[in-house]
Order: sequence, then structure tokens, then C-alpha cells
Amino acid sequence: MTHYRTLIDGHIAAWVNALPKGGLYAPMAYLMDLPAKRVRPALVILGCELFGGRAENVLDEALGIELFHNFTLMHDDIMDAAPLRRGKPTVHEKWNVNTAILSGDALLVKAYQLMAKRADVARIFSKHALEVCEGQQLDMDFEQRSDVTTVDYTEMIRLKTAVLLACSLRVGAAIAGANTEDSDRIGAFGEHTGLAFQLRDDLLDAFGDTAKTGKQQGGDLRAGKKTFLLIHGLELSAANKRNELHEELAKPVDERDVPRMLLALEELGVHKEAERAIQAEDRKAAEALEAIGVPEDRKAPLLALSAQLMARSY
Amino acid sequence: MTHYRTLIDGHIAAWVNALPKGGLYAPMAYLMDLPAKRVRPALVILGCELFGGRAENVLDEALGIELFHNFTLMHDDIMDAAPLRRGKPTVHEKWNVNTAILSGDALLVKAYQLMAKRADVARIFSKHALEVCEGQQLDMDFEQRSDVTTVDYTEMIRLKTAVLLACSLRVGAAIAGANTEDSDRIGAFGEHTGLAFQLRDDLLDAFGDTAKTGKQQGGDLRAGKKTFLLIHGLELSAANKRNELHEELAKPVDERDVPRMLLALEELGVHKEAERAIQAEDRKAAEALEAIGVPEDRKAPLLALSAQLMARSY
Repeated sequence: MTHYRTLIDGHIAAWVNALPKGGLYAPMAYLMDLPAKRVRPALVILGCELFGGRAENVLDEALGIELFHNFTLMHDDIMDAAPLRRGKPTVHEKWNVNTAILSGDALLVKAYQLMAKRADVARIFSKHALEVCEGQQLDMDFEQRSDVTTVDYTEMIRLKTAVLLACSLRVGAAIAGANTEDSDRIGAFGEHTGLAFQLRDDLLDAFGDTAKTGKQQGGDLRAGKKTFLLIHGLELSAANKRNELHEELAKPVDERDVPRMLLALEELGVHKEAERAIQAEDRKAAEALEAIGVPEDRKAPLLALSAQLMARSY
Repeated sequence: MTHYRTLIDGHIAAWVNALPKGGLYAPMAYLMDLPAKRVRPALVILGCELFGGRAENVLDEALGIELFHNFTLMHDDIMDAAPLRRGKPTVHEKWNVNTAILSGDALLVKAYQLMAKRADVARIFSKHALEVCEGQQLDMDFEQRSDVTTVDYTEMIRLKTAVLLACSLRVGAAIAGANTEDSDRIGAFGEHTGLAFQLRDDLLDAFGDTAKTGKQQGGDLRAGKKTFLLIHGLELSAANKRNELHEELAKPVDERDVPRMLLALEELGVHKEAERAIQAEDRKAAEALEAIGVPEDRKAPLLALSAQLMARSY
């Protein structure tokens, strides 16, 4: 992965250095300079190489996807009133909301400058970009709703997180000339991998080792955030006539007994259900990748990346 | 113009009707349904027909430019904290700021779905879209600055308003197969027409007939808005040792004596200077159009549209 990382980081650094100074460009440079895993650009390259294309031919699109991802972060942070992003002040905190809106808009245009060099790539990108917006809308809607099911939740994270991984792979595949069936397969691999990743993220928040995750254990639970765990926990509480979760959620946020909530989730079997759901997504991802008729050794980097995403311990 | 209007309105109505209901699509439909002149889509068609292309071939791009224009309105209204747009509540007032941010983002993506069907059109569009963002940034910066000159102001309105008219014409011309020189000429026509239009708009705000403009006379002046008139008025006041404008601006907004400000502008010759600037832009627009080597009758609709934009009386 070090080879891809060097290529991607070099391309990003060159782009940041070429930006005009100040104005609406300064927040773009700030956000793009924060440390990040660059998973999406790597997927563009891996999607391309899987079908025999060359990494050098998709570097612009790899960068474009990362610009789009950062555009969503800049605007989502406004909507979520988030003070920090990767440990640093968010753009709307460091500058102001108007600058974050406008710089984000310009960043989306900059993303399109790279994603619309080919009409077929632009088409794939726009379709998924719209789904990402729909996912963010659902996420905001859920905060006001009390009837969200795990099915609703899964659809939300599919749109908000998983489809952009699928998009990255599809764009790489399109540039390498993959056919429609293979494009759908690599898209399915990305989507299921993304779902497994997000579900694992939810699980780590609750049951992860604070020393390893770097986050307060059960932060989402304390905040009453409707993740898979809490939604399914509430569903099973109703079926099993248990009240711990409802009781804790009725308290003010800082009086909630997180260990009691975690125990209830374990006893209700939510922890195991989440593990099963993750494994099911992982299996679907693996099946989609298996169905692609290219030499097996070309699949190795994708399997390594997905294993790396999954291996985060707790 | 009625013919173009029918084509454009039909295409817009079909687009609005095909939108999913609710969610982030409802604000798009709301904004696109407000009465509007649809100048930019008309310019896409006229730019195309000027070079022998057919209107039917550019309807998607004509719609795309109008979607982009409405995206800028949705986000600019948030940044300006504007309560009304075309006499109706703005999107962030009718829904909320988060919805206006997200629906605007999705509207920009929808615009690109139409503007990125050809790489050359996408390239023209992105370049100008970025300039529009830069213009909005300058406009916001100017509110905090006290050293804005008429040169700065002209550059701001060029970016914020005029370049999108140039973009509309260039997109139509590109699809009709115009060469680079002609594309630059029709772009210059659009830009100078846009500048003349915006300067006339400033003039009408101050010296227009309320009954005809539908606006309170001198609303911009009262608000202390840095238009060409006020900026140049302050420049000439300093040179002529006159204090009326400074005195009025030092008062609270609702105590400002607008007739006294208008009189000062007339006596300083600002009114005439603005007229001269408008005529200079008009002349440059006409020269750019003249230089294009197509049959003169093809230029008639463009001249008619620009005359219509200019003829607004006061």
C-alpha cells in the first residue's frame, strides 16, 4: 500500500501547492492537509489496476474523489455543528459558516474539474454524489424521528458512506475499460465493504478498547445517537420487556450510565447480531469480488485493503 | 423570445415534475417554480443558434445553467441572511439552514448531470462556476473592508454576475462547434452585457421610479451597500471635500436622509459617470458581437435580448 500512498500523497500535495493563496482556497488547503487515510483514492487506483489499467491514468480521478469527500466533511461539519475534525478546529469554527459553505461549494466544483474529464466517469460520479447527499438528509431526518428501524439505518449508512467507496472502485474500473457486469460486481464489493466498515465502526465505539480507538467508550450511546446498536437494542428491549436503555435515555446526557447500557446490549444479544451483520456484509463483498473474472493475484491488494479496514481490533 | 421561453419553460417543468417528492428535492422544486426571467437558458440557446446549432440540442445545458444559478441563489441567500427571494420566503427560512445547504449541494450535482455530458462543456462550466464562487467571496469580503475601489467593485460584479452570462453563451457556442476566437468574442459580449446590466441595476435602485422598479428608491444607499454609486461617490467626496455621504452613513440606517444622498451623488456627477460606464460596457459588447463572422440576421435575437435587459426605464 506504501506505493499507492506515495503516488496519492504526491498528487494531493501538488494540488494543494498550486491553489491560489487565501480567500475561499485557504479552507480547502487546510482541510486537505489534515492527516487522513486516503482510502477512497486508493480504491480508485485498485479498481483500475484490477481490470488491467495503470495507476498513473487515474490519479486525477483519485484526487477528485478525495476532494469530494472533503467537501462533504466541510458541509456535514456545519450541519452537525461539529467543533473538531481529526482533532483540529472545523472550517466553520476556524473561519465562519459562510466561508465553510462557499469554500465547500468551490471544492465540489474543483472535484468536478477532475471527475468530468470523461462523460462516463462524470455520470458514475454524479449518481453516487447525489446518493451521498440523500444519505446525509436521512441522517438529519433520523435525529427528529423515533421510528427508525435497523433497515432504515442500514439504508442511511449505505448512502452516506458505502456508495462513495463503490463509486471510487467503479470510476477506476470504468477508466480501465471494465464491462457493465464487472462494474456492478466491483461496486457491490465496495458497497458491502463500506457497510461492514461502518457497522464495525459503530461496534468499536461501544465495545472497543479506548486505548486503541482513541475515543471515549460508548460516546455514541451516551449521546443517544441512533446507530445500529441502539436502534436494534431498543427493538429487542420492546420484544423482551426490558427498560434499561429507555431509562438511561430518559436521563440528561451526562447522567447516563454507559456501562449499564453496554451490559443491556450484550444481554439482549445486540453485540452478536452486529457481528453477524458485519460478517454477512463481508461475505457478500467477498462473493462479488470472486465473481470477477480476472487473475486472482490482481485481487490481492483489494483483499489486503479490506482486511486492513476490518482488522481494527477492540 | 416567446418561442425560446416556451421551450425552456417546458423543459424546466418536466425536470421539476420528474423530481422525487420531499426530502432534499422539495426545496429545489420550490425555488425552480418561482417566477424568473430565465435569461441564462435563453443565452445558451442564442449562443448555439448564433453559430448555426439547433435549440433542441442544448436544452439540457440551458436547464443545467439555470439549476446552477438557482443553486447560487439558495446558498447566497443563507450567506446574506435574506428572508425573501422573488417575494417568497427563502429556502433557509421556509425549511432551515441545513436543508438549504444540503439541497443546494444536491442542486449543484444535478446541474453537473446536465453540464458534464460533454467534457468540453464541463470544462467551460467549471471554470466559470469557480469564478462565480470567487465573486461571492469578494462580495462578502467587501462588507468588512473600507478600501474598496470602483475597480475592485467592477471585478466583483464581473465574477459574481457577468461571467455566468458569458458561460451560458460559450456553452451554446461550443455545442454548435464555434472556434476559439468566436467563443472568446461571444464570451466578451456576455461579460460586457452582464456588467452593463448590473451597473444599470445599481443605477435603477438609486434613481429608478419606484412604481416601475417595484423597489424602495435608494434601498442600497440607505443600507450603505457598496455599489458602484456609493463607492465612486465616496471617492469623489474626498476629492471634492464634501461630507454629505459620510455624514449620512454615520447615522443609524433608518435615520439616513436618502434624498440628500441622491442629491450629493448627482452633484458629484456620479450618476453621469455610471451612465458613461454602462455605455462603455454596451459598446464593448456590441464590438465583440460585430467581430463574429456570421450572417447579421443571426445576431438579431441577441441584440434584442440585450436591448430588453437595458431598456428597463427609470
